[in-house]
Amino acid sequence: MPSFPPRRAESETGDPLLLTPGPLTTSKTVKQAMVHDWGSRDAAFLKINKDVLTRLPEIIHGEGRYVTVPMQGSGTFAVEAMLTSLVPVDGKVLVLINGAYGHRAKRILDIARRDAITYETPEDTPPDPQRLDEIMKADPAITHVFVVHCETTSGIRNPIEAVADVVARNGKRLLIDAMSAFGALPLDSRTTAFDAVAASSNKCIEGVPGLGFVLVKQDVIAGAKGNATTLVLDLYDQWQGFQRTGQFRFTPPIHVIVAFHQALEEFWAEGGVAGRGGRYADNCRILIEGMQELGFSTLLPDHLQAPIIITFHMPADPAFDFQRFYDGLSDRGFLIYPGKLTVADSFRIGCIGRLYPKDMHSALAAVREVLTELGVSMPLRSAA
Amino acid sequence: MPSFPPRRAESETGDPLLLTPGPLTTSKTVKQAMVHDWGSRDAAFLKINKDVLTRLPEIIHGEGRYVTVPMQGSGTFAVEAMLTSLVPVDGKVLVLINGAYGHRAKRILDIARRDAITYETPEDTPPDPQRLDEIMKADPAITHVFVVHCETTSGIRNPIEAVADVVARNGKRLLIDAMSAFGALPLDSRTTAFDAVAASSNKCIEGVPGLGFVLVKQDVIAGAKGNATTLVLDLYDQWQGFQRTGQFRFTPPIHVIVAFHQALEEFWAEGGVAGRGGRYADNCRILIEGMQELGFSTLLPDHLQAPIIITFHMPADPAFDFQRFYDGLSDRGFLIYPGKLTVADSFRIGCIGRLYPKDMHSALAAVREVLTELGVSMPLRSAA
Repeated sequence: MPSFPPRRAESETGDPLLLTPGPLTTSKTVKQAMVHDWGSRDAAFLKINKDVLTRLPEIIHGEGRYVTVPMQGSGTFAVEAMLTSLVPVDGKVLVLINGAYGHRAKRILDIARRDAITYETPEDTPPDPQRLDEIMKADPAITHVFVVHCETTSGIRNPIEAVADVVARNGKRLLIDAMSAFGALPLDSRTTAFDAVAASSNKCIEGVPGLGFVLVKQDVIAGAKGNATTLVLDLYDQWQGFQRTGQFRFTPPIHVIVAFHQALEEFWAEGGVAGRGGRYADNCRILIEGMQELGFSTLLPDHLQAPIIITFHMPADPAFDFQRFYDGLSDRGFLIYPGKLTVADSFRIGCIGRLYPKDMHSALAAVREVLTELGVSMPLRSAA
Repeated sequence: MPSFPPRRAESETGDPLLLTPGPLTTSKTVKQAMVHDWGSRDAAFLKINKDVLTRLPEIIHGEGRYVTVPMQGSGTFAVEAMLTSLVPVDGKVLVLINGAYGHRAKRILDIARRDAITYETPEDTPPDPQRLDEIMKADPAITHVFVVHCETTSGIRNPIEAVADVVARNGKRLLIDAMSAFGALPLDSRTTAFDAVAASSNKCIEGVPGLGFVLVKQDVIAGAKGNATTLVLDLYDQWQGFQRTGQFRFTPPIHVIVAFHQALEEFWAEGGVAGRGGRYADNCRILIEGMQELGFSTLLPDHLQAPIIITFHMPADPAFDFQRFYDGLSDRGFLIYPGKLTVADSFRIGCIGRLYPKDMHSALAAVREVLTELGVSMPLRSAA
């Protein structure tokens, strides 16, 4: 056992690197944008906010057709706002589930007393468009379909285009939770039909947490009056407020929004979805290849793996103790994520945020060190 | 007309001074606490968060009897969470109204389909405890009373202790919106009976916006299962989550919470409610006296005026144009607030945040300069 502490990786601001599905490591410039105060109703802040609202639809090529309605709080606040504001009281939602976020949407609809049925597949299995077609044809009362773009439960990339196509062919409306995918996986509203997509400030745009948002088709939001089951989560009411005054109805998280504005600048400077998604894909490939070399195996085959977060099977070696593995990596400046799966004993490592291929290589070196420290023999064998 | 720009006041970070009811000017150290990243489920952040949750009840002397349930979003998110989580489906709320925030609570209850009646007084008039007593005696179905501690619509200080006494004598439960008063006006749970009080990070504790919280009596939150009308605003569910895991259910606004933690340190260092409230009272007195010297008159008599935000009558002089007055003060580094009253044409100036008596004197000098620039003759006469 060495008596000196291990070498510790750190971000530009001296913090551990967050290999999580978000909140994630952000740039120093994004965080420094917050070292100011603004009046929430003053022109200086309203201009920054308007710029954010105007430019977000460009990410889905929805300029002029989609409006941005921001929502204070986490991404789930935006998802609950989307579901309760856009599904009318006599609507019926088919919820596609292959992880925790699909289940959460079902729970939101149940609490809101909106009729909802589910089509659930295992956590490592995407929904089958053919089966989805059959379910919709068998139940004409269905008005909406809800799908998660990337389920961070497993890291699976759901076939959003195929789902959208079959939903549109059946004349139903699609609502997307794109939380951890937005800005990294392409979503083109010119070729993929959907009513609305929810996401947040602290995922692939690399802002800090505290703001969600929903991009909604103009005519859909205009027709959403009176659906909401709350005051604060009412997207229609907030949209109307912006139309009337350009202001939030209730105090916005100003500093979070100003940081998000800076994050969007850096997102465009990196080349938008292509640039950002490209860097994450590099990170993901390096991480998977390196972990496989050490003997780890991934839950998902490559064609289902989104370049967001990767689920690895727990190793079979009894010397591998997850808490000690987590702590050893934490001591070396890397924070990873426990598993959330029911189908397999696992843990997760994220590859999004202000992280580069060099950080993935450092993380892999740290994994090797910790395995050695734990006395795990390599290459290891998976428990699966 | 001078051709050189006016001298411009600025905060420690070079920003305009916010003479508003919040978001407000915060210290540089509070904002600098945000120039880091944390994992939302990592021990380092969870410790900071736990410290915030543990220490907030001390402000109402409620240690061991009240728990803190934080709520992502603005203060209204916390108020809606409090009302919908703590009033059961068969409850009936008497809402005391003398401004916009009382009306907002009524709207929240209407949307949530909770039975609610109102006792409304003019914006410059506090509720009469005797009349409140009569209303409760005449309607035994009432289970809860809702009151706003300081209505920032006018800046009025409602008689929270007298209201609490009569509510308790009638065996009803009191819910308080203390948003703009919390930390500056005393609220002692040992002598003032209430079930819960809602407030936020960006008022008198001088944090940045993005987090609300509700301090709830232990037995009240324990009995609140199943009341909520949403997933995200369910205080019971969030409280249970903390009991089980010490974590937020959904991504917290980490940077906002870390800044709030720093703000609480600075709050205690200033002497808690006595120190903070004392500075604001000094600010308030200097501002009112100085404005009165210039000929402005306040809406409220001194004994109803909370040291938070002051409503001034619009001057009668036709040379006084509010937009030009606002812009002139803005050019000099002071952001004030428009009026929100129905009883009188008015504007508001706040005295909370990282502002000191010297800033009030500077603001008064700027007001005098702008009045001169507008050609308003002093001392002016009020329109009222």
